[in-house]
Amino acid sequence: MYDNIILLAHGAGGKKSAELLRAVFLRHLGNPALALLGDAAILTGIEGRLAFTTDAFVVAPLFFPGGDIGKLSICGTVNDLTAAGARPVALSAAFIIEEGLDIGTLEEVVISMRAAADEVGVSVVAGDTKVVPRGAADRLFITTAGLGIIPPDSTPPAPERAAPGDAVIVSGALADHGMAVMIQREGLRFSGTIHSDCAPLYHMIAAVRAVVPEIHAMRDPTRGGLAAVLHELAEQAGVAIEVEEQAIPVHADVRTACELLGIDPLHVANEGKMVLIVPTAHADAALDALHHHPLGREAARIGQVHKAPAGRVHLRTPFGALRILDLPSGDLLPRIC
Amino acid sequence: MYDNIILLAHGAGGKKSAELLRAVFLRHLGNPALALLGDAAILTGIEGRLAFTTDAFVVAPLFFPGGDIGKLSICGTVNDLTAAGARPVALSAAFIIEEGLDIGTLEEVVISMRAAADEVGVSVVAGDTKVVPRGAADRLFITTAGLGIIPPDSTPPAPERAAPGDAVIVSGALADHGMAVMIQREGLRFSGTIHSDCAPLYHMIAAVRAVVPEIHAMRDPTRGGLAAVLHELAEQAGVAIEVEEQAIPVHADVRTACELLGIDPLHVANEGKMVLIVPTAHADAALDALHHHPLGREAARIGQVHKAPAGRVHLRTPFGALRILDLPSGDLLPRIC
Repeated sequence: MYDNIILLAHGAGGKKSAELLRAVFLRHLGNPALALLGDAAILTGIEGRLAFTTDAFVVAPLFFPGGDIGKLSICGTVNDLTAAGARPVALSAAFIIEEGLDIGTLEEVVISMRAAADEVGVSVVAGDTKVVPRGAADRLFITTAGLGIIPPDSTPPAPERAAPGDAVIVSGALADHGMAVMIQREGLRFSGTIHSDCAPLYHMIAAVRAVVPEIHAMRDPTRGGLAAVLHELAEQAGVAIEVEEQAIPVHADVRTACELLGIDPLHVANEGKMVLIVPTAHADAALDALHHHPLGREAARIGQVHKAPAGRVHLRTPFGALRILDLPSGDLLPRIC
Repeated sequence: MYDNIILLAHGAGGKKSAELLRAVFLRHLGNPALALLGDAAILTGIEGRLAFTTDAFVVAPLFFPGGDIGKLSICGTVNDLTAAGARPVALSAAFIIEEGLDIGTLEEVVISMRAAADEVGVSVVAGDTKVVPRGAADRLFITTAGLGIIPPDSTPPAPERAAPGDAVIVSGALADHGMAVMIQREGLRFSGTIHSDCAPLYHMIAAVRAVVPEIHAMRDPTRGGLAAVLHELAEQAGVAIEVEEQAIPVHADVRTACELLGIDPLHVANEGKMVLIVPTAHADAALDALHHHPLGREAARIGQVHKAPAGRVHLRTPFGALRILDLPSGDLLPRIC
């Protein structure tokens, strides 16, 4: 029905494009909206406040322990909608494919997208495929966009709502994703395998929201890691944030790998973690809800929001010293997501 | 404030990313939703049926007579929403940038996106930027997604509504975009310059909708050109379509270029044209509305929908012969959009 590698013709809008669409995309992502193949998907019954987001994924290699670019592209956008306080309702996916990619590889990625989307009960309703000549892209890039509904009776989390006294919670151990990809890419050998934490967090956060009336702020610590997220929150809310180094969960093997490579785990990308800022009165309830969810078992309260100095993030070391937690300078880990 | 070329650090989520975001993206695309810089933009006051679409843009070269990848990325998504019968309300844009791209080039592209979006009165409310090492992408790819509202009292156009007897209208001359890009890319010399037709069509189609109660089907003939669109419509509606070769507008210089290069202009991508299928009773009113709009001055009625043979597209030649209009085989023109 089609050759086993992607050709330029697969992206040209003609017969080959139609074949690829049916054989791979509709076959694995198919749903009533996508099957219509119009210029746009039509969504009905959507009312109220919407969340709208997009993310490009350029991770290399395409497959890594714990995930692949397909799973990542769904989780990333689902988690952004989740962080905005929304329930994901529709996703789009655009593929930029290098000529010569094995169609079986593409299919594996698309199957993985479907599995991640199914986990959340959301569909890819719109898509696009472009093929570029060999050398013009590195195998496969995926850009997803997502649409979510913010429940009508809720105040969505927002960075500026982080308030002095609030507790800072992280939903699990940090740096798994970035280190898993980096180790895979560089062909490094460590004892054991570090798995990416790549996961869609909507249901985990829904469980927290069911028991915690207000989450002041929420962010998923992807590129730039926990450090970047705390900085953004501190800056946008005009508050200081202090975290306890010892309270921040990092798996032992990840910590070892970070130490060997001279990388701060707080600067490394996560793809299945959430940072929550909640009123202290609700911190225990939030932690409890997280601990009861499979993706939140290692959740921990790691710090507190303070009034001043505004925009500053402090790390309290195991020896009690307070040091400034820097924003990552950022040229360490390209193509981690 | 920033170096004059894109570095890997600009995509890493740290200080450089924040600088680029402010210096280029917020500066030129800034609007209240985007300025919040959350994980997702929050949109309020949206109700009813939504149209949701996405497109990846990989055109080479980035700049061509009549447009650039930025303008293209906005027009493509606006036109898809328009074709779905929607009013564009929000766009997202994700940038995949090759390390080493001149920041001035990126800025020029972003300015051009803003201009095209302003023409329609729509904003880019969500975005993402990834930087890949030299050689992993060709300069710049942009993926946009778009959200539109379908007016509550309207029946949106749909391919399957194309009915026997309907008139086929094209909003202007064909093949300008594809030929402009191809000539620019290959460094070919023709007398005069062929300009891309790249334009956002929302207002033009709104003018038609104001006077024509029902547009049965609508498609913008991008990749694969008019031939691909007519095939899709004929297949999805289970009808035959017959078009008159002589009635199809193609600029003389474009026709000459196509002949010299052995390319069928009906297979070439357009980025500022719409194909409309309307009840014959409304064909004159639709044409009249198009002719009064600057982007529709060369609109023409080019054919008719027939009952059978289902899925077949016929071209009547100037000599009265009827030949099958083939779907483009599709490996002619990569990276045209």
